[in-house]
Amino acid sequence: MTTFVLVHGSWHDGSAWNAVIQHLEARGHQAFAPTIAGHGKGMNKNVNHAQCTQSIVDYIVGKDLTDIVLLGHSFAGTIIAKVAEAIPDRIRRLIFFGAFVLNDGESLRDNVPPHLQTLLDELVRESNDQMMVMPLELWREAFLNDADLDLARSSYAQLSPEPYQPWIDKLDLRQFYSLPIPKSYLYCTEDTALPQGEWGWHPRMSNRLGQFRFVQMPGSHEVMFSNPVGLVEKIIVAGRD
Amino acid sequence: MTTFVLVHGSWHDGSAWNAVIQHLEARGHQAFAPTIAGHGKGMNKNVNHAQCTQSIVDYIVGKDLTDIVLLGHSFAGTIIAKVAEAIPDRIRRLIFFGAFVLNDGESLRDNVPPHLQTLLDELVRESNDQMMVMPLELWREAFLNDADLDLARSSYAQLSPEPYQPWIDKLDLRQFYSLPIPKSYLYCTEDTALPQGEWGWHPRMSNRLGQFRFVQMPGSHEVMFSNPVGLVEKIIVAGRD
Amino acid sequence: MTTFVLVHGSWHDGSAWNAVIQHLEARGHQAFAPTIAGHGKGMNKNVNHAQCTQSIVDYIVGKDLTDIVLLGHSFAGTIIAKVAEAIPDRIRRLIFFGAFVLNDGESLRDNVPPHLQTLLDELVRESNDQMMVMPLELWREAFLNDADLDLARSSYAQLSPEPYQPWIDKLDLRQFYSLPIPKSYLYCTEDTALPQGEWGWHPRMSNRLGQFRFVQMPGSHEVMFSNPVGLVEKIIVAGRD
Repeated sequence: MTTFVLVHGSWHDGSAWNAVIQHLEARGHQAFAPTIAGHGKGMNKNVNHAQCTQSIVDYIVGKDLTDIVLLGHSFAGTIIAKVAEAIPDRIRRLIFFGAFVLNDGESLRDNVPPHLQTLLDELVRESNDQMMVMPLELWREAFLNDADLDLARSSYAQLSPEPYQPWIDKLDLRQFYSLPIPKSYLYCTEDTALPQGEWGWHPRMSNRLGQFRFVQMPGSHEVMFSNPVGLVEKIIVAGRD
Repeated sequence: MTTFVLVHGSWHDGSAWNAVIQHLEARGHQAFAPTIAGHGKGMNKNVNHAQCTQSIVDYIVGKDLTDIVLLGHSFAGTIIAKVAEAIPDRIRRLIFFGAFVLNDGESLRDNVPPHLQTLLDELVRESNDQMMVMPLELWREAFLNDADLDLARSSYAQLSPEPYQPWIDKLDLRQFYSLPIPKSYLYCTEDTALPQGEWGWHPRMSNRLGQFRFVQMPGSHEVMFSNPVGLVEKIIVAGRD
Repeated sequence: MTTFVLVHGSWHDGSAWNAVIQHLEARGHQAFAPTIAGHGKGMNKNVNHAQCTQSIVDYIVGKDLTDIVLLGHSFAGTIIAKVAEAIPDRIRRLIFFGAFVLNDGESLRDNVPPHLQTLLDELVRESNDQMMVMPLELWREAFLNDADLDLARSSYAQLSPEPYQPWIDKLDLRQFYSLPIPKSYLYCTEDTALPQGEWGWHPRMSNRLGQFRFVQMPGSHEVMFSNPVGLVEKIIVAGRD
């Protein structure tokens, strides 16, 4: 029995993992899905990256979770890296799932291609409030490309605006890169949330981990919606010793 | 129910889609497979790229097909791009299937690696007639690598020489790149008709589309022969709203 | 019925193929798995690359095997290339399976990324005997990433130290690159023995073959342990005419 802590990506909150948690529990595991500070519907979006990290640290320490497999999806690759720096002794393994792995000193925004930087900046301007609203067409075509339109729409209805500040904070990751915690990278082969190739998740982000376990499955960036059973299968493979 | 128009690649004619059409119809869809001008056995091969395009435009307009999903395989990625410029209002979505997506001003020949440019030029010289005959060994090893020798041979017998002029015409694609028609790219993971990597179909060609839906399946460049049922499954996923 | 000769990679001996041979025979084929000179438990590791090659040539000639499909895994890509130079008339097809394909004049060591060159050199220093002992953690995370810990441990127990000299010998491959023998490259999509991307097996190594048949399957570098049945399926596809 493994204890998983699942950290959602941008535009999401902890409810993104509902189906995954159900299937992990059916397989005999325990799973928690906190919502990052500044995320979720109706929440105050005025947060920075350090506050995002701290909210997950507080959750894990508050519940006194130990020997956990800590998974971060997408944006939350940067959260679990910083959480690992804060409470390394509680973590058995890190799973980066279609996740950002930043070089020391970089921001998330630094790690997306120029045309997506432009798009993010436009979304911030449109919001008038330092947030980014996910465009439906982008979600349907590039994030849920393996789903039908109904699922693309119903999952889109769960999203909420993403705070911008955590995306532009430069992260000090020197300590992260010296941690001896085992790491896995889980990648979906049709994930185009970042365009594949030069600016893609894998192998660009994954190889930054140094020694890591690579696990792959078919699907889009959002298989927690389109294929939660298949995802659970691979989370277990990525998370085992 | 969707209306598909399937446009074949080089060396092929519309009969390449026979099995695919049968399975699309069994799934309740309608599908047409015109033969491009200058293609097919015994046809006059003296055509340029504009004439190839016009023949498909004429077919669609002649049958008054509307709200179509227009799919182009390989070479025909350039045909559907130019058809979309001519009759955008008839097209619901474009599917580029293992297909060329050219930058504005380029030719097809510009988009294959130097050793294949040399090969194409040799084939033209051998033909004495501005055409290229597909070598059996290339077909068997690099195009139908997922099939047995019998299928490689029987499908090879369906081929006919490819006119060279459409391969060297430089294409004006400025209008194509401003069209708001949704686009999908369907890629087979063992497709080595173009060598994978720097000169490969994906992500080199696909990313040129900007926002697009990415769909992937196992198989070679010629899965319409080696796996028509699996291909139909993915054409439907690529073509739905 | 095909006659396969299967040549193991570094740290292995011929017993790595036990399950594969069993399943190939169940499918009606014949298969041999010689151990390369300087490999295997308790063997004298003082060999160079030419002696490694010669031992496989001697095995094939000694058994008078003809019309063989010769497969090399990993390191043994360089062995089958040199064996093919020595006895081309006995070989029907070469299969490079997650295998090194060197440019003329290079060594194996030249073909791994700088951080792995450093690791290999450290392993040699630690051995005090011009050999490299595989670290368990590397084996478990990067070579058998698709297996559970029990299988990672039991297969690790079969390994023996790898001689260093064959890894630094520069290979003359001019003759190999002129041989007309058909070639296949078989690649596992989660193989991270070499990091994927710039320094990866595919397409970096595979494309050096020129015209070749590409076959792909899920799995790690060591699917002969984690999925011998699936591997046999693909060996047959890679090896047929």
